[in-house]
Amino acid sequence: MTDPTPGSTPRTRIRRLPERTVTELAKAHGVLDAGLVAHVAVLDSEGQPYVVPVGYARDGNRILFHGSSGSRLFRSLGAGAPTCLTVTLLDGLVLARSAFESSMNYRSVMVLGTCTILTDEEADHALRVISDHLLPDRWADIRGPSRKELAATLVLALDLNECSVKIRDGGPEDAPEDLDRPVWAGYIPIVESFGAPVAADANAAALPVPNYMLGWTR
Amino acid sequence: MTDPTPGSTPRTRIRRLPERTVTELAKAHGVLDAGLVAHVAVLDSEGQPYVVPVGYARDGNRILFHGSSGSRLFRSLGAGAPTCLTVTLLDGLVLARSAFESSMNYRSVMVLGTCTILTDEEADHALRVISDHLLPDRWADIRGPSRKELAATLVLALDLNECSVKIRDGGPEDAPEDLDRPVWAGYIPIVESFGAPVAADANAAALPVPNYMLGWTR
Repeated sequence: MTDPTPGSTPRTRIRRLPERTVTELAKAHGVLDAGLVAHVAVLDSEGQPYVVPVGYARDGNRILFHGSSGSRLFRSLGAGAPTCLTVTLLDGLVLARSAFESSMNYRSVMVLGTCTILTDEEADHALRVISDHLLPDRWADIRGPSRKELAATLVLALDLNECSVKIRDGGPEDAPEDLDRPVWAGYIPIVESFGAPVAADANAAALPVPNYMLGWTR
Repeated sequence: MTDPTPGSTPRTRIRRLPERTVTELAKAHGVLDAGLVAHVAVLDSEGQPYVVPVGYARDGNRILFHGSSGSRLFRSLGAGAPTCLTVTLLDGLVLARSAFESSMNYRSVMVLGTCTILTDEEADHALRVISDHLLPDRWADIRGPSRKELAATLVLALDLNECSVKIRDGGPEDAPEDLDRPVWAGYIPIVESFGAPVAADANAAALPVPNYMLGWTR
């Protein structure tokens, strides 16, 4: 196994398939910056885990996301329940010559820790950072949150102090005895892309699509 | 709130944004059949949750997936730890005229329960079903798992008895007082697609890409 990620501890070192563990924190940042949706674990009072998708952004050494302040699960996160936030980007199908080596290419970051609730200026800043990640340059064009909307929003931060990154790319790793099987092998890339914008209504259709949206690509 | 999904119980009814809760089990099946990767929660002995990405398939009223039999986390799942498996498909960015209504379009299914370990013929069947979902028609072309490979593989099933589905689509739901703001509003679809197959090596490059792969689209 290679050196652990700077922000890793023994419990986040990937124990299986260590050759897929890429250990630089910079790579974790790269994956987090490329993703839009994370899956967050929340435990209820009976120890039942829930896995909830959330939009998020990285802000330096922490992850920011938000939910409804009326949500029992988000309030539990804000109260310091141990959590795990995982971002996975699916990059391809790996077609090996055996079932066992058939796989998928992906980039995945797992973050362990407890969340902190952000309030006031910190919450304002976090909402702006999340918007800038998901919808770059959109913030200045739209109405910011009202006091009532802010009260309905629970803004959470999760430090990247304990995280791991796994990346699998390229073709299959067939066993030597399988290399001569008469079957095509390799990989099929999977790419995510944006379609053409769809206007909400006549008001929007009468307006030009903003320039900053033309630069949004995946 | 509309009627719960047939396989839902109170704890899986979505408590927030109930208008996004589409309640037919058939819709849950549709989402599960469209996805490739699920995020599964696993608790360690200290109650720390982990969220792990896995390839999976739906087989009737259950989800099948597999991991390494040497993985502590997967063995914990096999031993009956309570889990949650979530599949999320990101369908678009929603550009509202306010920050609060800005959102994403998605389809997401959450399944609660405990896993069962499959063995012998049931494990063989499950591996075939998973392969058929991720790589349709590939199974007959490749070498099936050896006894040693099967021993290294933990095959798990999770019943769909307790699940919920949330779907958000279409444009933003701006407040009436925001509709006249002079800013474009609507949504941008996100689509996932396959790129051209990349051969693993000279052996593969000398062989035709199988016909069944030509039918694979997303």
